[in-house]
Amino acid sequence: MSVVTETPRRGRPRDPAIDAKVLEATVELLEEEGFASATIQAISQRSGVPAPAIYRRWPTRLALIEHAALRGFAHIEVRATGDLGRDLRRFVRAYLDVYGTPAAQTAIPGLMASYQRGAVPAPARWIHISVRPQFYEILRAATPEHVDPSLDPDEIFDLLLGAILAHTFVPTAAGRARPVDRIVDLVVRLVRPTA
Amino acid sequence: MSVVTETPRRGRPRDPAIDAKVLEATVELLEEEGFASATIQAISQRSGVPAPAIYRRWPTRLALIEHAALRGFAHIEVRATGDLGRDLRRFVRAYLDVYGTPAAQTAIPGLMASYQRGAVPAPARWIHISVRPQFYEILRAATPEHVDPSLDPDEIFDLLLGAILAHTFVPTAAGRARPVDRIVDLVVRLVRPTA
Repeated sequence: MSVVTETPRRGRPRDPAIDAKVLEATVELLEEEGFASATIQAISQRSGVPAPAIYRRWPTRLALIEHAALRGFAHIEVRATGDLGRDLRRFVRAYLDVYGTPAAQTAIPGLMASYQRGAVPAPARWIHISVRPQFYEILRAATPEHVDPSLDPDEIFDLLLGAILAHTFVPTAAGRARPVDRIVDLVVRLVRPTA
Repeated sequence: MSVVTETPRRGRPRDPAIDAKVLEATVELLEEEGFASATIQAISQRSGVPAPAIYRRWPTRLALIEHAALRGFAHIEVRATGDLGRDLRRFVRAYLDVYGTPAAQTAIPGLMASYQRGAVPAPARWIHISVRPQFYEILRAATPEHVDPSLDPDEIFDLLLGAILAHTFVPTAAGRARPVDRIVDLVVRLVRPTA
């Protein structure tokens, strides 16, 4: 049997159509039935992909939900131009777009609650970690009179992330007009070198 | 019957022991069984207070959960001394203390998910709205060379709130050491008048 000669690790090339089916089913369940209902069993039933095949692709239910709900992050590509305000505006807008999808708005509080209970091993957490390098590049590309090099870019990123979270999930903050401009103006001000 | 002569609005003075029993039962359920299990029925059973008496005190389950999980906010009292860094440090520390309780860490993601689904009328939302005035007072009391008066204090507050949320709920941010100092340093820097 040819299967025997194939080690599981090499295997056949993965069928991307299966990944897409599973992600789509997860998004639909999140949107239609909520976080608690997006179980592997339900996702398997809706997608027609058996549970073991799902677990071969995503180690945990939460990793799959995170991937499905926040897959827009994979498409965030803000090239640093050196124009800090413009680059940040595009960056924040892309972030808010991802957080603003119905699936993300359902998934994020559910993921937060699960992380809070310590349910997830660190590596699967928060796909937007992969977006950090783009943010650093934006800061690096800006001219020195706009960015204080002594600042820790990780802390600025966390602050930006918090502002986006608040604008997405805290009603009083979410109510403000022009959130992108508000957030960008504050970050531009914050990173400016002090006199 | 004396009951007839009492209008429901005047009523007898509320027994604060009943409020305390209900709040305590809610906190325990959040801690032990999670957000979904903290239903009015379960709270009623555990506290021994009938559901109608609970609804007389809190219009919705979510209002009760918010009150119970975040009741520490009622005790935040940071008097503005004019020393911006010191006042902010005390303020942020008090906030992190409230968010750091097990009941809050369970309740906040659950509340966020519910708000997201539009389940709550605006007035019941986010008890920490009541903390805003203290923050404004801290900014107002600081000397002019430390705070740019042209800044919108609401926006600064939202940014601070976002930073605290991120430090509480986003693993990468939560991992940073000395979160209070980190957040306060950035806010102090942000509000400083520009040259």
